[in-house]
Amino acid sequence: MTHKIAILGASGYTGAELIRLIAEHPNMEIVALSGERKAGQSMAEVFPHLRHLDLPVLCKIDEIDFAGIDLCFCALPHKTSQEVIRALPSTLRIVDLSADFRLRDPEAYRKWYGNDHVALEQQAEAVYGLTEFYRDQIRTARLVAGTGCNAATGQYVLRPLIAAGVIDLDEIILDLKCAVSGAGRSLKENLLHAELSEGYNAYAVGGTHRHLGEFDQEFSALAGRPVQVQFTPHLIPANRGILATAYVRGDAQTVFETLAAAYADEPFLHVLPFGETPSTHHVRGSNHCHIGVTGDRLAGRAIVIAALDNLTKGSSGQALQNANLMLGETETTGLTMAPLFP
Amino acid sequence: MTHKIAILGASGYTGAELIRLIAEHPNMEIVALSGERKAGQSMAEVFPHLRHLDLPVLCKIDEIDFAGIDLCFCALPHKTSQEVIRALPSTLRIVDLSADFRLRDPEAYRKWYGNDHVALEQQAEAVYGLTEFYRDQIRTARLVAGTGCNAATGQYVLRPLIAAGVIDLDEIILDLKCAVSGAGRSLKENLLHAELSEGYNAYAVGGTHRHLGEFDQEFSALAGRPVQVQFTPHLIPANRGILATAYVRGDAQTVFETLAAAYADEPFLHVLPFGETPSTHHVRGSNHCHIGVTGDRLAGRAIVIAALDNLTKGSSGQALQNANLMLGETETTGLTMAPLFP
Amino acid sequence: MTHKIAILGASGYTGAELIRLIAEHPNMEIVALSGERKAGQSMAEVFPHLRHLDLPVLCKIDEIDFAGIDLCFCALPHKTSQEVIRALPSTLRIVDLSADFRLRDPEAYRKWYGNDHVALEQQAEAVYGLTEFYRDQIRTARLVAGTGCNAATGQYVLRPLIAAGVIDLDEIILDLKCAVSGAGRSLKENLLHAELSEGYNAYAVGGTHRHLGEFDQEFSALAGRPVQVQFTPHLIPANRGILATAYVRGDAQTVFETLAAAYADEPFLHVLPFGETPSTHHVRGSNHCHIGVTGDRLAGRAIVIAALDNLTKGSSGQALQNANLMLGETETTGLTMAPLFP
Amino acid sequence: MTHKIAILGASGYTGAELIRLIAEHPNMEIVALSGERKAGQSMAEVFPHLRHLDLPVLCKIDEIDFAGIDLCFCALPHKTSQEVIRALPSTLRIVDLSADFRLRDPEAYRKWYGNDHVALEQQAEAVYGLTEFYRDQIRTARLVAGTGCNAATGQYVLRPLIAAGVIDLDEIILDLKCAVSGAGRSLKENLLHAELSEGYNAYAVGGTHRHLGEFDQEFSALAGRPVQVQFTPHLIPANRGILATAYVRGDAQTVFETLAAAYADEPFLHVLPFGETPSTHHVRGSNHCHIGVTGDRLAGRAIVIAALDNLTKGSSGQALQNANLMLGETETTGLTMAPLFP
Repeated sequence: MTHKIAILGASGYTGAELIRLIAEHPNMEIVALSGERKAGQSMAEVFPHLRHLDLPVLCKIDEIDFAGIDLCFCALPHKTSQEVIRALPSTLRIVDLSADFRLRDPEAYRKWYGNDHVALEQQAEAVYGLTEFYRDQIRTARLVAGTGCNAATGQYVLRPLIAAGVIDLDEIILDLKCAVSGAGRSLKENLLHAELSEGYNAYAVGGTHRHLGEFDQEFSALAGRPVQVQFTPHLIPANRGILATAYVRGDAQTVFETLAAAYADEPFLHVLPFGETPSTHHVRGSNHCHIGVTGDRLAGRAIVIAALDNLTKGSSGQALQNANLMLGETETTGLTMAPLFP
Repeated sequence: MTHKIAILGASGYTGAELIRLIAEHPNMEIVALSGERKAGQSMAEVFPHLRHLDLPVLCKIDEIDFAGIDLCFCALPHKTSQEVIRALPSTLRIVDLSADFRLRDPEAYRKWYGNDHVALEQQAEAVYGLTEFYRDQIRTARLVAGTGCNAATGQYVLRPLIAAGVIDLDEIILDLKCAVSGAGRSLKENLLHAELSEGYNAYAVGGTHRHLGEFDQEFSALAGRPVQVQFTPHLIPANRGILATAYVRGDAQTVFETLAAAYADEPFLHVLPFGETPSTHHVRGSNHCHIGVTGDRLAGRAIVIAALDNLTKGSSGQALQNANLMLGETETTGLTMAPLFP
Repeated sequence: MTHKIAILGASGYTGAELIRLIAEHPNMEIVALSGERKAGQSMAEVFPHLRHLDLPVLCKIDEIDFAGIDLCFCALPHKTSQEVIRALPSTLRIVDLSADFRLRDPEAYRKWYGNDHVALEQQAEAVYGLTEFYRDQIRTARLVAGTGCNAATGQYVLRPLIAAGVIDLDEIILDLKCAVSGAGRSLKENLLHAELSEGYNAYAVGGTHRHLGEFDQEFSALAGRPVQVQFTPHLIPANRGILATAYVRGDAQTVFETLAAAYADEPFLHVLPFGETPSTHHVRGSNHCHIGVTGDRLAGRAIVIAALDNLTKGSSGQALQNANLMLGETETTGLTMAPLFP
Repeated sequence: MTHKIAILGASGYTGAELIRLIAEHPNMEIVALSGERKAGQSMAEVFPHLRHLDLPVLCKIDEIDFAGIDLCFCALPHKTSQEVIRALPSTLRIVDLSADFRLRDPEAYRKWYGNDHVALEQQAEAVYGLTEFYRDQIRTARLVAGTGCNAATGQYVLRPLIAAGVIDLDEIILDLKCAVSGAGRSLKENLLHAELSEGYNAYAVGGTHRHLGEFDQEFSALAGRPVQVQFTPHLIPANRGILATAYVRGDAQTVFETLAAAYADEPFLHVLPFGETPSTHHVRGSNHCHIGVTGDRLAGRAIVIAALDNLTKGSSGQALQNANLMLGETETTGLTMAPLFP
């Protein structure tokens, strides 16, 4: 059986990545693509790399007949997403890739995003989309909130360690290195090739990045007490990839074993042999996440590093993985492609 | 039915690219991988991006039992390839990715490669592997010689034009821009990131590049008279991609129509609307080739530009396309993935 | 004696490059910097790489007292430049970096730029700023029009050959490869790192690039008859650099000797030994231009390749070289820094 | 008075960088350049970007007459350097850029470098070359040991804080991001453009990087007690730059004020306004170092980030700064060039 799929916001990078993945999915068919500003254009115009595919022309959201849609991916900007989803049929299965439904607490949402949420009813039913930890709820969910790409990476490193109580909850530092596609297709000076290539810098320093809202929510729930990590993202001159370097306090071997055991059966999460370090080179374009654990020369300290592709495992791949679960498909269908190297 | 596949020279880029592609092929199974210098190592060590795959450990060629192999890809260096293939079972289906069997004339081989060919018998039976133009012979071939990546790109631009007699055969200039993976995984100063990134240059200027041997052979055969193009390759700071800019004399609209008609039914060759220009961005990691035609302000001159991924359509993707034909598979199986963008 | 310098349009790349160069000039002092939209900001905000310099705050043009200015660099966008320069004191020495005063023929200007020129009086007195060929006029000029960066590169390759009559004037092809800073600090999708890095493409194909106006004007004047070259620029994923590959008809050795003789005494134009090829890697950040000549395998054809830095020799370095001449300084002062490699 | 300068090991990146800088120095003249493997070659062959300079041909070290040399830069590999320097005239002023004379304790040297030191006499007289902290000793030194580029960056961040006692000495984490030229011109697979560009990874994880020897030596001496930091370097796809992100415990405002006061009079060390973050983009090719301080959302924690160019301030620029002091020149001569951006 072929599932009819709509993608709202198909003119951005996560929309294009969804199309790339779904094009290879044997049981999904894209029947509608929206792009408000580019409505009427073909995907060949908006993303020439997709010109070989037979795809619907971009339309406006209100031109879509959702009656025939089995599942809708929503790749719209924050704030827009909640307004759109509020108005969609209440029975439509939705995987949202924005930040709008990630935070369960409306207060936390307001704190990190600066505005009141306008779709609290939908927010209440949303399931957090970190597949490996919310599988059962996702299977039966109507609305799944895809995680932030940085938030996913940090959680793959830390969740099993927090849950198992093998690290000091007050001494967690997450130094993240992100590629530029995480910033989307937005026209900003610092995202220009001339300004970004050949250099790098930190941003949102000092605990101000919005993905901290997700870390706080998830880690505190896991620990049963407030947990606040230090988190500093850095912008790296590359297009895809997140590398999270976590500095934790705990026995390195125990940290390793805890992660290895937690992910032993996961198709996409790979814990490297102790002492090896992952690279974003080795996951590009794939849904895989590589995780490495090393002990520091200082006893009782471990370094855990994770690498994934922000557009795939960190966003659209995760979204498809969730959609597979919601539609009763095998979780890995359409997601088994190997990374592109070099 | 699953075909048993061997890949000789699996520790180079074209070998790794073959594995990436075959891993998604429903009817192929990799049963042997060779790498003389790295024999005994796992692919996870040699190419960590393939660590999620269940692959044979690298072995030496003489450890492989070819009796159980349906088809062997040979991704060895020039000169080594002919020595190895000469010694393989004479009934084994082989797709060779080296330059060793591309030139039919031993004199031409000696001229361009500087040594005598040691496998003239195999050379005599080899079929030139430019799929779209040698399909029928490839279907029944035992040994197929994959084309050079530059040579493939140039031929996609020029073959239909030469065959149709719509351009001046003595006034063809091919200015090529190539990414660095075409040079392979070789340790040379000019291939270091520090020496290559942020700059670019021509090389093998003046008609000295070896792929000219293929151009001369193929274009002259097509035209029924000697054809010698001017060909200047440039090394560009990118990992994948070839952009061929051809300057030809002929009516631009006729040039366009000739190419459009020639490739109308080709699954991987796409002629863009007249006046549009292709980009290597839009074919990366895929088996697609985009071709654009524009007329110059000077009457009677046209510019034809083609873009493809040197490792995929220019090498390993082409090889798999040929293997599909040789094994009775659908030609496009395992090759339909969309490009990776960004 | 220290010359008082103003730079209009200091918030763009050519403005910043001028500041970088002038900061090391022993006899120039920057006393005014304009930036309409960023007036009131310090240069440390606009270009943090200049924060160590003691520079004036950005102001609006009409806030500048030009009475105390010895020379004004105008790094404004096309069209804006002519409006501004028309209103500046008629005795003020000006080096303009825009396209506005490059074309002597108002018809040609209208053809290539699509609008009527509003400062025809100033246009009439402007001297074309290709230093090596207009030195004497520049020394006494009040208004110098900096050349286009592509136009400069192409002219360094071709002018001596056209002047000496050693190549066929009807068979000149110029295939150019340009880095992205040539497009300025403009917010366009195709200039984003995510869209530009790792790929390349032609643009303005078919004789539509505006710098053709300069080629036509200069080459025709030199030859004493109309000369129209074929010119195709390509956008390369690098920040600085232009590589011009010229395909000409003529004896390669004669071509080489003509260029070597023409530039024998030039401080910044270096003809490489016959058969060597230049690279943009080797001129980055400098005012040098490297030129290489090779013969093709086809008799009577030569390939001439030139490399320079579009922001330095192609724009701001050229501008400073001209300013030195206008102010009676040694031509090379402030311009002798070596390229940055790697 | 012009000082006669020799550079040993001129065929590597730090050697070339020294030449770039010294070429603009008004009072230095390069009279000898050594390169054992490339002896007899001109610099134009080894580094074509230096072809415009009038430089000595590369020779072997034993061909140099050191009698006429005022100061010798030694840019040789570790281990080679100590063997060479041991044999040089004992009165010759030397600035060594290798690791050989950085560690005062022969045991520490053996621990981090794995071999016995063969020039203990010279080691005993060597002065550690971190200019800002060893100025007086450097002025009268005969042999100065240039610091490691990572070690310099980390020390600029941490020395004033350790000296002032404003941070917890047992809770220092240094997460470093380095560009590839720090690895030198060595032919290694992971330094190839195809393997490095578009991805990033940590290396020497767990406290195994050799620059820790310098951190331990210097920080412990400053504190008067053992200090061991956590230090994890990451390799970033860029050619120049180091970004050090330090996580420290202490009052952020105090941290800021301590650094700002310490560097108030330094010509090359710039503390940004509180809360701003530096970028390697803004120091490329210059001798400047930018330092930013931010408080974390967790009270009592600060993040200090420093950016410099590893080849300039981190190595050859520092070396020239020291040479200026040793020769009685103004410290900043030849080092005032602005960064190259973009």
